[in-house]
Amino acid sequence: MGPHGDGDIENVESESRRRPISTVVFVIAMQAEAQPLVNKFGLSETSDSPLGKGLPWVLYHGLHKDLRIYVVCPGKDAASGMFLLLPLFITLIDINNNSARIDSVGTVPASLITFASIQALQPDILINAGTCGAFKVKGANIGDVFLVSDVVFHDRRIPIPMFDLYGVGLRQAFSTPNLLKELNLKIGRLSTGDSLDMSTQDESLIIANDATLKDMEGAAVAYVAELLKVPVIFLKAVTDLIDGDKPAAEEFLQNLAVVTSALEETATKVINFIHGKTLSDL
Amino acid sequence: MGPHGDGDIENVESESRRRPISTVVFVIAMQAEAQPLVNKFGLSETSDSPLGKGLPWVLYHGLHKDLRIYVVCPGKDAASGMFLLLPLFITLIDINNNSARIDSVGTVPASLITFASIQALQPDILINAGTCGAFKVKGANIGDVFLVSDVVFHDRRIPIPMFDLYGVGLRQAFSTPNLLKELNLKIGRLSTGDSLDMSTQDESLIIANDATLKDMEGAAVAYVAELLKVPVIFLKAVTDLIDGDKPAAEEFLQNLAVVTSALEETATKVINFIHGKTLSDL
Repeated sequence: MGPHGDGDIENVESESRRRPISTVVFVIAMQAEAQPLVNKFGLSETSDSPLGKGLPWVLYHGLHKDLRIYVVCPGKDAASGMFLLLPLFITLIDINNNSARIDSVGTVPASLITFASIQALQPDILINAGTCGAFKVKGANIGDVFLVSDVVFHDRRIPIPMFDLYGVGLRQAFSTPNLLKELNLKIGRLSTGDSLDMSTQDESLIIANDATLKDMEGAAVAYVAELLKVPVIFLKAVTDLIDGDKPAAEEFLQNLAVVTSALEETATKVINFIHGKTLSDL
Repeated sequence: MGPHGDGDIENVESESRRRPISTVVFVIAMQAEAQPLVNKFGLSETSDSPLGKGLPWVLYHGLHKDLRIYVVCPGKDAASGMFLLLPLFITLIDINNNSARIDSVGTVPASLITFASIQALQPDILINAGTCGAFKVKGANIGDVFLVSDVVFHDRRIPIPMFDLYGVGLRQAFSTPNLLKELNLKIGRLSTGDSLDMSTQDESLIIANDATLKDMEGAAVAYVAELLKVPVIFLKAVTDLIDGDKPAAEEFLQNLAVVTSALEETATKVINFIHGKTLSDL
């Protein structure tokens, strides 16, 4: 037996592991990634958001049987100025008052909405769902939906002993062996950075860390989940092959609609699997 | 006159601009950067932190005359495993139970403590203070303390129209012309990224954005301050010359103690200048 304080924490954790999961929060960076899931479960946008007033964050809520489902997105950022609008990009950009509003992708907005969602909604489990790049040499194809084993960062290079490990920030996803088996998903390590493209240094670190997937939020969501002691899993759908022959941005935009539909299908299976189960059953 | 809603917001803002500043929050990434300021103002560590329970974040508080001063740091991250301890690094690393605990530097922890501090402490103004790298071709010397004009990111490359501007994330610091004149500080643009070193791509973006200073938190703190509508200024003290001939990590560690002392001196002058003034007086 541990000391009194630790024992209490262990009891709470093991008690919550034995209770059926009642609240799931999806953290999703782009509206285009979230919309199929919002439609599928008939979720409503929360008007008086418990996450705070005057923020661009978008929160959807609904019930699936007796499971509370939330989807939180960082919302749109206004970026004004001169720009070219190619038809391909129209789905990603809202035009309003001569300024364009685009999704607040990346680690900082994702970490803020994860933090605020956990504080306000007290989920039993977080699911970070979204699109990603992947390596075909690691067995990935366009449209695959991966469950993530663990996460790292590839753009936090701090060449001082110990700070280097902190920068990489290796964290395990919550272990869900039954979910993995039941849904027959591919599994791999996810590497996160704030750029859509990949520099030589990014590539070296991704390869050194043996990652299969590359995204712009996962490791930051894992950091906040660990900080606040909430289990987190990751569903990442492949829009572009990093070791393929097309530029990431072009391939991402071409495949976005089809791949987010595949992501929604897998997320639905995950929700159906989670329903009625405890964390230990996953 | 604007519509009713806008008018209210303007009134609140202009009212707060006419009231003497009563609460200042310093956001500081490293304990070693914060300690001289904590000592100077005799600040106490807050035991029952209003920022949340079970978090590694460290909050100091105190009064200077009738001005409430807080210093918030992201605290330490445990990184265990095999490592070499060089004497030079000892000041940065706490050894405890065979694991090393190092400061949670970078944009994600900084954005979280900024968010939580604003929510809990409702400061009139934020000051992000810390060390930075700088370019001698832009007039910087080791030990200079700069006031920041505006901030950008150099490691968020998203080559899709509008997303590219979002990635750069240009934001103005709160304008303090009287403070700048009174303290006779150097002024320059700050570029933020999560690496201590600088890749070729980082360098290209820093030069393209005409930045003088390089740090690991500023632009993320500015993002959160804008989100929550709190004025923010930046005091950045130069520990290493990016276009000098020494590696950044080595020069940073050599100059850290002397430069944080210079940072404390300037921060003290800023506090003395702020005392009794309104935001409009700055």
